[in-house]
Amino acid sequence: MTSVSSPPERLFELWGEIKDLLSAQELLHWDQETQMPPRGLEGRSQALSMLAGLHHEKLCATELGDVLEACSELVEEGRGSSQEGLDTQVLAAQVEEARRQVNQATKVPLALAKELAELQSTGLAAWLEARERQDFSSYQPFLERMIELKRQQAEALADGGHLYDALLDEFEPGLTEQELVPLFDQLREALGELVRETVESGHQVDEGAIEGNYPDSGQLALGRHLAEAIGFDFKAGRIDASAHPFCIGISRGDVRLTWRSERNDLRPAVFGILHEAGHGLYEQGLPAEWDRTPLGASVSLGIHESQSRLWENLVGRSRAFWHWALPELHRTFPEARDLTVETLWPALHAVRPSLIRVEADEATYNLHVAIRFDLERKLFAGALEVKDLPLAWDDAYEALLGVRAENPADGVLQDIHWSLGSFGYFPTYTLGTLAASQLFEAAKAELGDLDEAFRQGEFQPLLAWLREKVHLHGCRFKTQELLQRSTGRTLSPDDFLRYIRTTTEEVYGL
Amino acid sequence: MTSVSSPPERLFELWGEIKDLLSAQELLHWDQETQMPPRGLEGRSQALSMLAGLHHEKLCATELGDVLEACSELVEEGRGSSQEGLDTQVLAAQVEEARRQVNQATKVPLALAKELAELQSTGLAAWLEARERQDFSSYQPFLERMIELKRQQAEALADGGHLYDALLDEFEPGLTEQELVPLFDQLREALGELVRETVESGHQVDEGAIEGNYPDSGQLALGRHLAEAIGFDFKAGRIDASAHPFCIGISRGDVRLTWRSERNDLRPAVFGILHEAGHGLYEQGLPAEWDRTPLGASVSLGIHESQSRLWENLVGRSRAFWHWALPELHRTFPEARDLTVETLWPALHAVRPSLIRVEADEATYNLHVAIRFDLERKLFAGALEVKDLPLAWDDAYEALLGVRAENPADGVLQDIHWSLGSFGYFPTYTLGTLAASQLFEAAKAELGDLDEAFRQGEFQPLLAWLREKVHLHGCRFKTQELLQRSTGRTLSPDDFLRYIRTTTEEVYGL
Repeated sequence: MTSVSSPPERLFELWGEIKDLLSAQELLHWDQETQMPPRGLEGRSQALSMLAGLHHEKLCATELGDVLEACSELVEEGRGSSQEGLDTQVLAAQVEEARRQVNQATKVPLALAKELAELQSTGLAAWLEARERQDFSSYQPFLERMIELKRQQAEALADGGHLYDALLDEFEPGLTEQELVPLFDQLREALGELVRETVESGHQVDEGAIEGNYPDSGQLALGRHLAEAIGFDFKAGRIDASAHPFCIGISRGDVRLTWRSERNDLRPAVFGILHEAGHGLYEQGLPAEWDRTPLGASVSLGIHESQSRLWENLVGRSRAFWHWALPELHRTFPEARDLTVETLWPALHAVRPSLIRVEADEATYNLHVAIRFDLERKLFAGALEVKDLPLAWDDAYEALLGVRAENPADGVLQDIHWSLGSFGYFPTYTLGTLAASQLFEAAKAELGDLDEAFRQGEFQPLLAWLREKVHLHGCRFKTQELLQRSTGRTLSPDDFLRYIRTTTEEVYGL
Repeated sequence: MTSVSSPPERLFELWGEIKDLLSAQELLHWDQETQMPPRGLEGRSQALSMLAGLHHEKLCATELGDVLEACSELVEEGRGSSQEGLDTQVLAAQVEEARRQVNQATKVPLALAKELAELQSTGLAAWLEARERQDFSSYQPFLERMIELKRQQAEALADGGHLYDALLDEFEPGLTEQELVPLFDQLREALGELVRETVESGHQVDEGAIEGNYPDSGQLALGRHLAEAIGFDFKAGRIDASAHPFCIGISRGDVRLTWRSERNDLRPAVFGILHEAGHGLYEQGLPAEWDRTPLGASVSLGIHESQSRLWENLVGRSRAFWHWALPELHRTFPEARDLTVETLWPALHAVRPSLIRVEADEATYNLHVAIRFDLERKLFAGALEVKDLPLAWDDAYEALLGVRAENPADGVLQDIHWSLGSFGYFPTYTLGTLAASQLFEAAKAELGDLDEAFRQGEFQPLLAWLREKVHLHGCRFKTQELLQRSTGRTLSPDDFLRYIRTTTEEVYGL
């Protein structure tokens, strides 16, 4: 059956099947969050576990290994596939990315993978209950076991290398702890100082201007309008309500956003939708020619987050954007007609040191991440025991943000991630923040000041730049190489720190 | 890995995976009809084709064949599995149903299966275009090829047996052409006569009473209310809009209905929802103990249709039902307050010989089916050529219903089924009609007259009877045995003909 296919052709056939399985899994997940009736849970869990098993099987299949070997030989001989005129360097990158995923699937013993999957499920339930009861101790043994299993997994994946790097690799291929530590040191110092200055300034941002009574239908209409304006294609996507907003790519032509709203505050809906639409633009912009191949995917969570934060914060919170968008807001909500760019803008940049990461502002958000990055590294280095984690958490918040949780639900139990075994995940949020600013500055350096375009509702020049520099490369270049190529340097906090300081100084009159 | 499982345990593990794959496919289909953005089609088709291939692979797997063999040996030795206390007869039925499906998958050569799948896709497109252009001739070669391929498929499945029975078997396991022919003869004669009498009576049913201006939201609210009242569990299901209403079981706990509406007529929404909810009650009532096993499924399309038609027509079009339901209709649509049971009821039983099957009333519907049953048998028997089909169609309509299509879109091109290769499918609609009446009469014979319960909105006694007699047996008993057990005799047109004559005589004063 395979005799007619060249090795690259066969690789793409096999990978297409793997992507089809992923696509089905994504749809089942989306449906579970947005549509599924409560009693569908048992059947859905079974179907998802079945599909995950098949996906693992296909990644571990002997034929795929053989085909990758045959493709490697073509690469070594310096030729792609003459039939298809495949570029040898591209083929090499395809093989490398495929191998990376195959390795992640094959290196972890099956028994460990199964125990991890089970612990994710029981650990999640234990976390939910512990948070509900505001009691860390009942959750402690699950977290201890999770860290033990994740350490085993990291050891299997690291091949003698650094453990935390193996954890990072799941979300941010190629990035290392060594690269991240100085970034976070710099952020901790600069943002800590900035936040202190805002507190000491005694200035209070008036956020009352944006409060009102906003029916859901209007919020959704406005959000859709903004998402469409920045380029999201609703013929290749849709938007639905969910408790926790997300974006999911079922296929290149089917990218789905979700949103949530608060009745008296437009910001969760508007900036949530801009954020998810930013993710969605990336998914819709992935290269058609590499669809269903290893390279036809996003680079990493960090680069994905750079797209969402760029549109949400650097575009969506700009004065120029609201010069264009405010008339639409007024049309949708006539009672908000007194809202002006000058009353709105400060409310989009208020700094409020707080306990909860997902409610944090742009200035303090990365301090929340820095705390998690420190604590999880200590846990894996054996420098912190799980039983001491709650106190370490509260102390870190007090030291860095000047706030202390009154109960663990507002502290160490607030995030779902660790209960699912996602260690090395939080740093990608900060990576996204930094990369967003770096890309935005590079775009402006090439395109000229974009404010005038935004004032006219013209976002196409920026999107076209992102398509060319980021989206259309799929995951051919990993994070640092992509940034080097698109911005002329590797990841740096400079652009973000300059942006956040300038903005904050203006808002707080520093 | 399989050493710890007994053969029956392993059978159910393997079958669970097959059902999980089906469940994923069902969800992808549902999503395509109700949610998917237009540009998602390409990716969706790929994912569905991949899942269908995996499903076929799993049915043909050597291990499944071996396990079925081992289970058969246990059955022959007169024991199920001592560990589980499995009933030997039940195990025998499980093995028989599994083998039936395995045979359907393995007996058809892979090349033929693939060509059929391709022709379904191209044939569907050709049918859509031909209907649009009202031109049968462009579609003719596709239908000819489809009949040729379906003949080959039926030959492969029939093992020297009767070809049309092999076609029927896909939808109605065990039923034969020989059983159906006399039923349709009787229906054709009795219904033809009844329809003639209504035409000759000169009586016109006043359907104006039910016409009005009904916003969608009210129609959906009313439909949901009725579906819930007859027992549909929305914690284990949901309802969405779609162009063509259907019911789909994703899992026992996740059964989905769809509906459509007409602004000026409540009937499409109300009776459509009752119809699909009848299907849904069956899916929600399948035996929990056999979930994800071969027997944990519905018997056939015909028995499925008996459940939908029973609730839609025999319950939903009864006076007693509307004595209870009308106040809710009045609450939902205050402008319809003049509607009474006595003005409404005749409008639910009007007889109007017409060209379009899906718009047909209860009396003429089965004549539409009879025409298709005759024509498709002739096509497969070689007694009718495809090029002569349009004329044969129009002549049959004129003879039986006194109407003649002015163009093929209202005639031979109106149904999608043949373009998908579904021959032997149409008879299941009539089988459902007959079985519905037969089951309803048997229920009343056991439970006493149900009208008083319906007037109180009590549908639980009827549902409980259907659960016990039909739903909870899964597909352990095939159609004729199930009817014999639940109604004391095999399929007969008598109850339906008595019902439709009595009702029609009253409405038309015959």
